[in-house]
Amino acid sequence: MELNIALLPGDGIGPEVVGQAVKVVDAVAEKFGHRVNWTFGLTGAAAIDAVGDPYPESTHEICLAADAVLFGAIGHPRYDNDPKAPVRPEQGLLKMRKQLGLFANVRPTFTFPSLIDNSPLKRERIEGTDLIILRELTGGIYFGERGRKDNGETAFDTCTYTRDEVKRLAKLGFEMAMNRRKKLCCVDKANVLESSRLWRETVQDMEKDFPEVEVSYEFVDAVAMRLVQWPSSYDVLITENLFGDILTDEASVISGSMGLMPSASIGVHTSLFEPIHGSYPQAAGKDIANPLATVLSAAMLFEDAFGLKEEAELIRAVVNKSLAEGIVTEDLAANNKAYKTSEVGDWLAAQVKLPEGITATPAQ
Amino acid sequence: MELNIALLPGDGIGPEVVGQAVKVVDAVAEKFGHRVNWTFGLTGAAAIDAVGDPYPESTHEICLAADAVLFGAIGHPRYDNDPKAPVRPEQGLLKMRKQLGLFANVRPTFTFPSLIDNSPLKRERIEGTDLIILRELTGGIYFGERGRKDNGETAFDTCTYTRDEVKRLAKLGFEMAMNRRKKLCCVDKANVLESSRLWRETVQDMEKDFPEVEVSYEFVDAVAMRLVQWPSSYDVLITENLFGDILTDEASVISGSMGLMPSASIGVHTSLFEPIHGSYPQAAGKDIANPLATVLSAAMLFEDAFGLKEEAELIRAVVNKSLAEGIVTEDLAANNKAYKTSEVGDWLAAQVKLPEGITATPAQ
Ligand SMILES: [Mg+2]
Ligand SMILES: [Mg+2]
Repeated sequence: MELNIALLPGDGIGPEVVGQAVKVVDAVAEKFGHRVNWTFGLTGAAAIDAVGDPYPESTHEICLAADAVLFGAIGHPRYDNDPKAPVRPEQGLLKMRKQLGLFANVRPTFTFPSLIDNSPLKRERIEGTDLIILRELTGGIYFGERGRKDNGETAFDTCTYTRDEVKRLAKLGFEMAMNRRKKLCCVDKANVLESSRLWRETVQDMEKDFPEVEVSYEFVDAVAMRLVQWPSSYDVLITENLFGDILTDEASVISGSMGLMPSASIGVHTSLFEPIHGSYPQAAGKDIANPLATVLSAAMLFEDAFGLKEEAELIRAVVNKSLAEGIVTEDLAANNKAYKTSEVGDWLAAQVKLPEGITATPAQ
Repeated sequence: MELNIALLPGDGIGPEVVGQAVKVVDAVAEKFGHRVNWTFGLTGAAAIDAVGDPYPESTHEICLAADAVLFGAIGHPRYDNDPKAPVRPEQGLLKMRKQLGLFANVRPTFTFPSLIDNSPLKRERIEGTDLIILRELTGGIYFGERGRKDNGETAFDTCTYTRDEVKRLAKLGFEMAMNRRKKLCCVDKANVLESSRLWRETVQDMEKDFPEVEVSYEFVDAVAMRLVQWPSSYDVLITENLFGDILTDEASVISGSMGLMPSASIGVHTSLFEPIHGSYPQAAGKDIANPLATVLSAAMLFEDAFGLKEEAELIRAVVNKSLAEGIVTEDLAANNKAYKTSEVGDWLAAQVKLPEGITATPAQ
């Protein structure tokens, strides 16, 4: 099979972790007789430096022409403390999501048995957690009208949603719930916000089309609490953009394995796969960042973009094996030997190429 | 001293827990020779039922005439699943905050040594946590313009802040930090939102007036993570209304003692003291709700509204004693005897009236 993949490493540790995923994908392709056509695109601070635009048109065309996008991270600290910078790396992220029609971010939170004691939560709180937060990505306050008034003394941002935007996201949520434990939680602030009331009434109207799904409605602040208290009580959660931004990040740390969490963004034109950990600038260039989240994102890419389930399973199996055998970066090494980012990537690729047997005996 | 206190029990368990605080306050007043004038006011669903307004003008006048307000909770489930209800209990909360000029909500998160193992977090994560979140209460998206367009198919909400609003809140934050560990964290989303950029640049401008305070700037999603990972790393956090709503609730559960957390709202005209736990309708009328948060809110009232520190300390001492001796409601009783809400209140009031010695030997 011919796999046309756009490769957008981005900023910070993005290039390093994406590099390891490329090694693993190439090894998988070789093993299964696929041909991967990688096309590189500039994004983020790197793209601002090169062409003055964090998501240039040339990068957009590369993504549109691809079957899937493998993405690293965007963001650079030199912009964070400069509220007056005319262009920001994160604008590239927003522009990319908007132009590719990436309307839904799929963020699983699950635990690895061998890593469960890394969670800040007690074992009995986190055990059995297997939830997905589905975050709306192209609407809401991150894309609404904003600006200054009164000579810059007043600032405003606008959160806007249409019923169709809510429906599109909610439909994905209902469908995912049907393939899982059939529980859906609509997260909103319908006791105050008009946009939340639109969310809630739209989802309520859709309940009749999915009679098997048990739907609950919870306020965002209550969910922020319950995610810490009883995360295993959730199955699929759907929510708007800003709430999803906060809750997905909160959820990402409860497993204790944030460095390993992959994600997908479902798009109108194409879909994009990326680790959730961000650009982590402090570690950039040091060859110490954990590449497993990006490698697991590549597994999602095989499965969700190309329907290649066996390839995805092989990647997950070698990742599990690396955890079990301690071939891990310093964040997971504890008192044992810490491997470099590139060494972990090389090891995973080599494991993929082994004649066979790995998928038959996946390590726990 | 003459203490004029407006008493707003509100909905759900509000009347029950406020009732216990009244017993304790009356006992303290008797002991120290104060005279308390309680003036009752209707709020929330109870006020909608009675007069069709969740914060009637008569209640507002009672609050304005008082030196401090002791408040229970607002909210009733029959409004939550009815997105079309014309009046909502929570509107009373917003109206009250706005009309009283309650611009800052002060939410401490701390641990009780005897309850630390109730935390969902591991002991080593939560130990030593002593933070305050200062939430802006009268601006932002909860008060901005909102509505529908396109025949109800589009909904919008607006987040607006002025520099003066930010300054007022930030000044309180800097001052509180100066009285504590001199660390201030400004929580925003300045990489995307214009209102957040106003927050950040305003706080940056104020740094020179408080040179001893070490200020950090963090994105709201990053804080949602770090509150779970390393809560003890924070001292004072300042943030806008919606972010504060989510983060204060998240913070409230990490101590494992949410039922015990008090709060204060600093106002232009008067200040209000309330437990953070909300109306908890499932427990209403059962005499099982934990009154300690309201009792500890009354302690904050003595200290912050009247400068009566000794009275506040006595209340905290008897609360500590009730925890140490297991005179607690079912949420804290584990396998031991659970006391009724009213029994805990009676016990605390009786302890207050004991000749002396309690403050001399506070239980841990
Ligand atoms: Mg985020
Ligand atoms: Mg809240």
